[in-house]
Amino acid sequence: MQAVMSAEEMNDWLGKVFPQVGSDFVVESMDGVTTVMRMKVDDRHLRPGNTVSGPSMFSLADVSAFVATMACIGKEALTVTTGCSIDFMRKPEAGKDLIAVTTLLKLGRTLSVTNILIYSEGNDAPVARANMTYSIPPKS
Amino acid sequence: MQAVMSAEEMNDWLGKVFPQVGSDFVVESMDGVTTVMRMKVDDRHLRPGNTVSGPSMFSLADVSAFVATMACIGKEALTVTTGCSIDFMRKPEAGKDLIAVTTLLKLGRTLSVTNILIYSEGNDAPVARANMTYSIPPKS
Amino acid sequence: MQAVMSAEEMNDWLGKVFPQVGSDFVVESMDGVTTVMRMKVDDRHLRPGNTVSGPSMFSLADVSAFVATMACIGKEALTVTTGCSIDFMRKPEAGKDLIAVTTLLKLGRTLSVTNILIYSEGNDAPVARANMTYSIPPKS
Amino acid sequence: MQAVMSAEEMNDWLGKVFPQVGSDFVVESMDGVTTVMRMKVDDRHLRPGNTVSGPSMFSLADVSAFVATMACIGKEALTVTTGCSIDFMRKPEAGKDLIAVTTLLKLGRTLSVTNILIYSEGNDAPVARANMTYSIPPKS
Repeated sequence: MQAVMSAEEMNDWLGKVFPQVGSDFVVESMDGVTTVMRMKVDDRHLRPGNTVSGPSMFSLADVSAFVATMACIGKEALTVTTGCSIDFMRKPEAGKDLIAVTTLLKLGRTLSVTNILIYSEGNDAPVARANMTYSIPPKS
Repeated sequence: MQAVMSAEEMNDWLGKVFPQVGSDFVVESMDGVTTVMRMKVDDRHLRPGNTVSGPSMFSLADVSAFVATMACIGKEALTVTTGCSIDFMRKPEAGKDLIAVTTLLKLGRTLSVTNILIYSEGNDAPVARANMTYSIPPKS
Repeated sequence: MQAVMSAEEMNDWLGKVFPQVGSDFVVESMDGVTTVMRMKVDDRHLRPGNTVSGPSMFSLADVSAFVATMACIGKEALTVTTGCSIDFMRKPEAGKDLIAVTTLLKLGRTLSVTNILIYSEGNDAPVARANMTYSIPPKS
Repeated sequence: MQAVMSAEEMNDWLGKVFPQVGSDFVVESMDGVTTVMRMKVDDRHLRPGNTVSGPSMFSLADVSAFVATMACIGKEALTVTTGCSIDFMRKPEAGKDLIAVTTLLKLGRTLSVTNILIYSEGNDAPVARANMTYSIPPKS
């Protein structure tokens, strides 16, 4: 697979289609196979124990899988998550951004499957792993 | 299992420990086995296609499993999600609240396991299913 | 949903399409929504600690979801599992059959989603929970 | 992490603790982080459509995660699977062995978490992905 647009173009587009959350997430790189995404962590993402909340990490995995799919098929905002499994393995470090590294395992005509590893920036032991399945709408 | 506090007490406590999101979620009932929770849907929860976002439904499942566990063990804000699998099956109806019905399948010394079904209020075909595993901190 | 064939007819057919394993599994009842299936446990299904192995329980969940889907759409042997999440919660009792209770949550044109609870016969605390997604081949 | 025994020693031990299935599975290499395992496919593993069955691939993922954990902690036959999520992405090639590549993501005191990719030998598009959580018994 090859990326059909640049990371800059993707970031512009995310801000438009996800105005509620787009600014939290930045595509650092994407090449059609591996997508690296940053989540700028702030107080809204924290939960008791001063750690990043599970739903915030889920959001990062979700947006990352979406971007990894769009990177190859182009802008299809109606592509939707059909399933996800996520494991929270370590406590993220407070005050550090999260970095998600996503691998596109399958890109079929109607769905994509990705593996995602999430890290606290600068630490190479992953804080979470996830896998996502996205359903791709038929071309009209 | 039996509930060790009332739904009212739980709602008060949620507002304190999750100030960012507590007001979106209301425990309707909980008896130690089945927990019913409402998510008040507003614009922040929507995504392109005018449907409730996956992360919003994940948050509802997550809070519901947390409440279902706390209902039996009491207030343990440091109880954390260790794993979740979620399937999005139907498009939630715009303008309807979401209702999550959670069944506590196991409450061990160190973890709980729950099944969650999420509905658009008034429709009996579930929009999502999830299962959650929570890790319970040791008693000090 | 309604069942389009009887449990007896399903059992006959399972023996033909799954000659390797069909005799281990017996449909006890199926009505289009809930399917109850028995796995006759013998030594082949055990693992160290004298408990039923994880793969044996996975097989039971897999066949149960297959039957729950076929119950409604008829005999489609090429219907295939696309995803499963399974949690093993308690140790099955040695010398007891396993009983799987499967709920059909969604039957779409191209896929089915089921929840499965597995019990040691006679004990109402589930030993495992699973959810399965099956892909249904297009009608030719 | 570092492996505390050789692949040869592991293979000998698997044959003893899993006499029913040990001979189907061969550890090709293991270094404490990545474990490569072969499943010798024969007729028992097939299902309608002449493809390797889901339960057979689940078994391969399960044994691989077990071996990846044992590689680091030594022989603990009572280590048990607590959860798994698996996606079947492509049809395995008939007549080809399956190769599972397992990455140990976390090895804690009480559990391990692994990611597994399964391939038909000689084809670099994975046929399945899985993640497994194993529970490690306390040292007596």
